[in-house]
Amino acid sequence: MTATGSDPKQIRMNLFEMCCVSHITHGMWVHPENTRHRFNELKYWLELAQLLEYGTFDALFLADVIGTYDTFRGGPETALAEGMQIPNNDPIMHVPAMAAVTDRLGFAVTCSTTYEPPFSFARRMSTVDHLTSGRIGWNVVTSYLPNAARNFGYEDEVEHDNRYERADEYLEVVYKLWEGSWDDDAVLVDREHRVYTDPTKVHYINHDGRYFKVAGPHLSEPSPQRTPVIFQAGVSEAGRKFAGKHAEAIFLGGESVEQTRHFVEDIRGVARSQGRDADDVKFFPSVNIIVGRDADEVAKKVSDYERLRSVEGYLAHWDSRFDLTAYPRDTPIKTLADSRPDGERLTARFRRFQTVGEALDSIGALNRPFSVAGTPDVVADRLVEWVDTTGVDGFNVIQHLTPGTAQDVIELVIPELRRRGRFRHAYDDEGPGTTLRERLFGTGQARLKPTHPGAAFRNLADTHPS
Amino acid sequence: MTATGSDPKQIRMNLFEMCCVSHITHGMWVHPENTRHRFNELKYWLELAQLLEYGTFDALFLADVIGTYDTFRGGPETALAEGMQIPNNDPIMHVPAMAAVTDRLGFAVTCSTTYEPPFSFARRMSTVDHLTSGRIGWNVVTSYLPNAARNFGYEDEVEHDNRYERADEYLEVVYKLWEGSWDDDAVLVDREHRVYTDPTKVHYINHDGRYFKVAGPHLSEPSPQRTPVIFQAGVSEAGRKFAGKHAEAIFLGGESVEQTRHFVEDIRGVARSQGRDADDVKFFPSVNIIVGRDADEVAKKVSDYERLRSVEGYLAHWDSRFDLTAYPRDTPIKTLADSRPDGERLTARFRRFQTVGEALDSIGALNRPFSVAGTPDVVADRLVEWVDTTGVDGFNVIQHLTPGTAQDVIELVIPELRRRGRFRHAYDDEGPGTTLRERLFGTGQARLKPTHPGAAFRNLADTHPS
Repeated sequence: MTATGSDPKQIRMNLFEMCCVSHITHGMWVHPENTRHRFNELKYWLELAQLLEYGTFDALFLADVIGTYDTFRGGPETALAEGMQIPNNDPIMHVPAMAAVTDRLGFAVTCSTTYEPPFSFARRMSTVDHLTSGRIGWNVVTSYLPNAARNFGYEDEVEHDNRYERADEYLEVVYKLWEGSWDDDAVLVDREHRVYTDPTKVHYINHDGRYFKVAGPHLSEPSPQRTPVIFQAGVSEAGRKFAGKHAEAIFLGGESVEQTRHFVEDIRGVARSQGRDADDVKFFPSVNIIVGRDADEVAKKVSDYERLRSVEGYLAHWDSRFDLTAYPRDTPIKTLADSRPDGERLTARFRRFQTVGEALDSIGALNRPFSVAGTPDVVADRLVEWVDTTGVDGFNVIQHLTPGTAQDVIELVIPELRRRGRFRHAYDDEGPGTTLRERLFGTGQARLKPTHPGAAFRNLADTHPS
Repeated sequence: MTATGSDPKQIRMNLFEMCCVSHITHGMWVHPENTRHRFNELKYWLELAQLLEYGTFDALFLADVIGTYDTFRGGPETALAEGMQIPNNDPIMHVPAMAAVTDRLGFAVTCSTTYEPPFSFARRMSTVDHLTSGRIGWNVVTSYLPNAARNFGYEDEVEHDNRYERADEYLEVVYKLWEGSWDDDAVLVDREHRVYTDPTKVHYINHDGRYFKVAGPHLSEPSPQRTPVIFQAGVSEAGRKFAGKHAEAIFLGGESVEQTRHFVEDIRGVARSQGRDADDVKFFPSVNIIVGRDADEVAKKVSDYERLRSVEGYLAHWDSRFDLTAYPRDTPIKTLADSRPDGERLTARFRRFQTVGEALDSIGALNRPFSVAGTPDVVADRLVEWVDTTGVDGFNVIQHLTPGTAQDVIELVIPELRRRGRFRHAYDDEGPGTTLRERLFGTGQARLKPTHPGAAFRNLADTHPS
């Protein structure tokens, strides 16, 4: 798994964002240099996209929730006061505008399979793939907020494993639309014979499953990537099976270095068992980078962060379903998990702590896995070590300040990684391919590999609705 | 109704578009100067938006269908060959990008109340209202294509009046989210006290109706217009009632001048009966403008249009549910309508013809209502006459060539209307307001009027979910 000196793995950077004030470093929005309160402005996003393209990032990753964190202390008050993921805006609406001011930067957007009809969703993604010239990825989530369920007519959240079964069928539907409904040579644009599309090469999908019934045909003509690059972020047992089957890239978060290596190997094993190559899945753990030109600058940034971080914000976020403040500090995490129907999730979230008190004290602190504070050489050492020991392909950068964190990474860290031969100098270093899938897998790889399960739906029979 | 010389009504222009090759002037896409085959490209839309803003248009109106016209001759073949509204892309995805290259142009986007969950739709529109700084309108449709129903798990189209009942509740839900869920002074952005939102000023909506159950709170903070400008396009009995109640602007199409005057008066009457002002609804019939610098140029354009228009394309479009070619030419329209369960719609569509043969010959021809071909003075005469005799507020320009038709209107027609004092010279002529609602109703009118039914949901009680 360790890269050899002769063939060092290039490190990739993505920026972790969300269309809200307080995404994941709660409390930091009040820092005078932070511009996150501008998230409703289009220019905020255009400037950020241009900055990331200047830094030759792979992609901007946009998280999302379609509900409010309102279980902590029995209401949404903490989330609202903290700006914690509410208010928020629909991430995908920002992408074509950012594509208008960039040429190479990719975009990975979170959309849930639980609440949006697959037919209109499939057209939405195809539209964005056209408008971005093939630079879109889809972070497949199944949603988990109880409030989200109640915004869509359900009494409470959909049961976890059932959500993955439904998601599996949802993917089948959209693969049929994206990969199977239009043949590669369907669109003729033949002015002389006045034929735009050859009707014999467009197909109904006539999907009739357990959860969905969709006739087709797909409305958009084939886009550069057809299926957007499939991202995934879950590491539950069901989530890893799903990821090994479908995902082309995986965002990890909160796991230890050791756990990360385990998940990378586990999911690559699932991929192989599905007939895919281990290398068909890229991994990006989220990383906290605090970098300064010297020790004083680093100390100042760490101090700002520690001073401003809002434990309340983290509690409302991380403890959305587990209000740890309701239990005695010396309660063992294991005891608590055993006593709750959602114990598996609680364990997954807090597995590295013994007691409720330890878990509470750690929330939002910098001593998390994949956190580093230091001068550029220290940070570069750590990033290289993490890549070489865990098998990940790069990182998903958590922002303390926008755009300050990305500026720091671009001005201080990436030049150091370039000196070490571990980061591209320009997108063209890897060839002329401009789609997101080519960014990840190489020029010429704009489409799903033939071994990906979505490719199985490429040759649909020409059927009319029954 | 006729404007007086001292106070002539300013004429407004909108451009009628759709994210597809052949929207409504079927066959014209093959014209060598037409660029509609570029509709998948972001640059096509950016250039068009910039052109319209240069011409001081009110808005770009984007039509949409979420299915395929596949009833004509029993299949989708004609629609596909003609590029007739398939392939098509999701219109709203284009808007923020166009907003990035314009400052004043409005956008009216078609979205159906039948197939998208209201909660995520409401956030999508709020997001776009933020990103466009308040330049978004929503053309409310209930969808009618049988294939669209089958793309969303239904066996066939939802029954017409029932669709409007459902639409009425859908609007109630989104009004609650847009107007009632967040108080005007909810967002504090108070860095000193570390409070982004005052939690006491954000409300669940707890909607529990016949068709929808939605908890809230709304996810986006208040946007410049909150509720997008409500557009409507139906003229059935149920459609007009709906329009008089909800619509702030109405697109008309295909009706005679006499019928148009009747609909304008009828819908304004409904508005008054709902406690609104007659002037709270603006009317824009679609208009065919063929303009040239001299008679030869006009004749050449008319000849091109007549030569290229595809009767097949029009048949597949207009006759989606009425394949008139299946009946003898001398069949009276009335007899045919009486024999069909959808006779009311057939009558509405073809009321100005006696027989099937007459209706067939007229399809796509230029001798339709609100069609004019001539030099700029001839065109201006007609436009002014239509406005002054029917009470409409301007037009929705149908394109024969993109961008040729809009260029012609901007270069030849608008200057003539300006000379007559009937068209703005600059957006600022009407004041500094930049939102779409202010464009229509004046600076300071960014929000729904208090008499609009959506305004009734402004003061929701602060309720937690039961």
